[in-house]
Amino acid sequence: MAKEKKSALEEKKGVSISEITNQSTIKTIKEKRRAKINTDVLVSSILKKDITALSRAITLVESKNPMHLKKANTIIKACLPHANNSVRIGITGVPGVGKSTFIEAFGKHITSKGKRIAVLAIDPSSSLTKGSILGDKTRMEDLVRDNNAFIRPSASGDSLGGVARKTREAIILCEAAGFDVIIIETVGVGQSETTVHSMVDFFLLLKLAGAGDELQGIKRGIIEMADAIAINKADGDNLKRAKLAKVEFNRALHLYPEKPSKWQPKVIVCSALKNEGIDTIWKFILDFIAMTTKNNHFYTKRNEQNKFWLIQTIEEQLKFDFFNRSKIKKELENQLQLIEANQTTPFAAADYLLGLD
Amino acid sequence: MAKEKKSALEEKKGVSISEITNQSTIKTIKEKRRAKINTDVLVSSILKKDITALSRAITLVESKNPMHLKKANTIIKACLPHANNSVRIGITGVPGVGKSTFIEAFGKHITSKGKRIAVLAIDPSSSLTKGSILGDKTRMEDLVRDNNAFIRPSASGDSLGGVARKTREAIILCEAAGFDVIIIETVGVGQSETTVHSMVDFFLLLKLAGAGDELQGIKRGIIEMADAIAINKADGDNLKRAKLAKVEFNRALHLYPEKPSKWQPKVIVCSALKNEGIDTIWKFILDFIAMTTKNNHFYTKRNEQNKFWLIQTIEEQLKFDFFNRSKIKKELENQLQLIEANQTTPFAAADYLLGLD
Repeated sequence: MAKEKKSALEEKKGVSISEITNQSTIKTIKEKRRAKINTDVLVSSILKKDITALSRAITLVESKNPMHLKKANTIIKACLPHANNSVRIGITGVPGVGKSTFIEAFGKHITSKGKRIAVLAIDPSSSLTKGSILGDKTRMEDLVRDNNAFIRPSASGDSLGGVARKTREAIILCEAAGFDVIIIETVGVGQSETTVHSMVDFFLLLKLAGAGDELQGIKRGIIEMADAIAINKADGDNLKRAKLAKVEFNRALHLYPEKPSKWQPKVIVCSALKNEGIDTIWKFILDFIAMTTKNNHFYTKRNEQNKFWLIQTIEEQLKFDFFNRSKIKKELENQLQLIEANQTTPFAAADYLLGLD
Repeated sequence: MAKEKKSALEEKKGVSISEITNQSTIKTIKEKRRAKINTDVLVSSILKKDITALSRAITLVESKNPMHLKKANTIIKACLPHANNSVRIGITGVPGVGKSTFIEAFGKHITSKGKRIAVLAIDPSSSLTKGSILGDKTRMEDLVRDNNAFIRPSASGDSLGGVARKTREAIILCEAAGFDVIIIETVGVGQSETTVHSMVDFFLLLKLAGAGDELQGIKRGIIEMADAIAINKADGDNLKRAKLAKVEFNRALHLYPEKPSKWQPKVIVCSALKNEGIDTIWKFILDFIAMTTKNNHFYTKRNEQNKFWLIQTIEEQLKFDFFNRSKIKKELENQLQLIEANQTTPFAAADYLLGLD
């Protein structure tokens, strides 16, 4: 079992034990007791809104140590009945759009209303860059010092699916720790927006006013996912352009069919730096929650998201198991070559590969 | 083995045989000979552009009889080296857009250039309605009588994946029979456009000029897939509206990032009834083929499509096998209820289900 260096989970050795004691029995008892104490204590501390306990539990969730994962699962299970009571908000936008400044202003606005806010992140690039969103914590100085805010840098992982799982579990822990609002932040890389969209109630797209043709080059599908588009940095010379961009985005949103939530997506201009428009966005979110709670879409969507993650996790694992078998790896290459040489069809090749055991 | 009624594959009983002959030996010999003769003869007839043989082979492909499927696979394998030399064009549009009239005019234009054209169809509704595209054959009277045209009604099937496989195999047979242009027609139901898009070189969307807001209600993604949009029935009172629609579609196409083919999608107004604009569309397709052959996208795309169908077929089968196990069916329901009751997470439930054998 690989020992994680500098981990918050590292446990100091105890004093040495007399040689006459039965080492193996002691070991068993100690492990059982430690496991029990840790998880029980952590859970009750989390429920008492203890941030240190919450951090430690999230670290367990993120650990690759199988014993830690076992504990993590125990904790999550115990926290589950206390979860599900927050508003989950996804926030995305390209680098430079002012995400950190926005989240800080937005977070402060929410804590000023007496609510507690947790900020998590999905950063698909983090396993390579060691967390580009990690730096944001140092850029949200005011929010970091706020007792009603909790900022957790992005979990890293080998796959977006793995990171997504850890984030979904961290949401449960944050909710059990009594946070009213959970923000899931992401940069617009690869499939990360779709992943975030599938775990939040409200999806906010941050944009900048550009040089006219606002919609060009926007990643496909992202406008469709947005419940609101906030055009940030709408101050000074930018204000006029931001207002023009608002018109164009409103026009674009108009092209899509009605959402299942019946919510008509909003476009807002804002300036996180000058704290303008932030209150409007929070008001829209409250309107959205009120409306979708009333028409039941809020809970329907959460159920659908749960089902999606269940099926998704199973399908990913089935594919992973199949395509990672050494026999399949080798034969897949052969079959692809035969297809390219017009000697077999994709269907005949699939039949052949599925027939291997 | 269920006997298919009214099948073109039905074989008449021969004359009665004397009782002293060894029935079982005769049966074996006959089956072997028949299988061999049939497939060999069918293949060589197909290569000689024999339409009756082509029809019969497609019927074998579409059959649910395992012995027929075995023969079909033999024929496809033999035809493969002679396939891949056509231009595959997908055509879609909602009912009422004038697809039949368009395909007839388009087909006649192509045969007038000395080319041979085959028209296949993917109709996801056909298993229910017994083939709504089937009727089109009677509406393409001129094309049906054309010796250089071959019109085949939609294959029916239990799943879009199954229908897609049959259509892909029919394409191979048509190409081996020397058809220069293969049209795959579909109505815009469910995922059928995406399916057609993933098996053609060029994707044509037929539209009507409407009452102003042309883009509203268009199925998502479809504009992105189009290599050309033809606004049909652009005649008489409709012409002005069609030209306005053209402006709006051009604007919409402009919003998307450049295609991998580097092809800039075209918008054309046409009248299939008056045979106007049809030649322009064919010219665009020839331009497209010339350009993508030169930049190699034509073959890259076909290879990607082959790979897509291989992986897709395997994944569909893996999922089907897993979720149709009776133990999984039962336990999936239980786990979903536990998730809804906050007693487990989608991930823990997935781990549990995957652990069942």
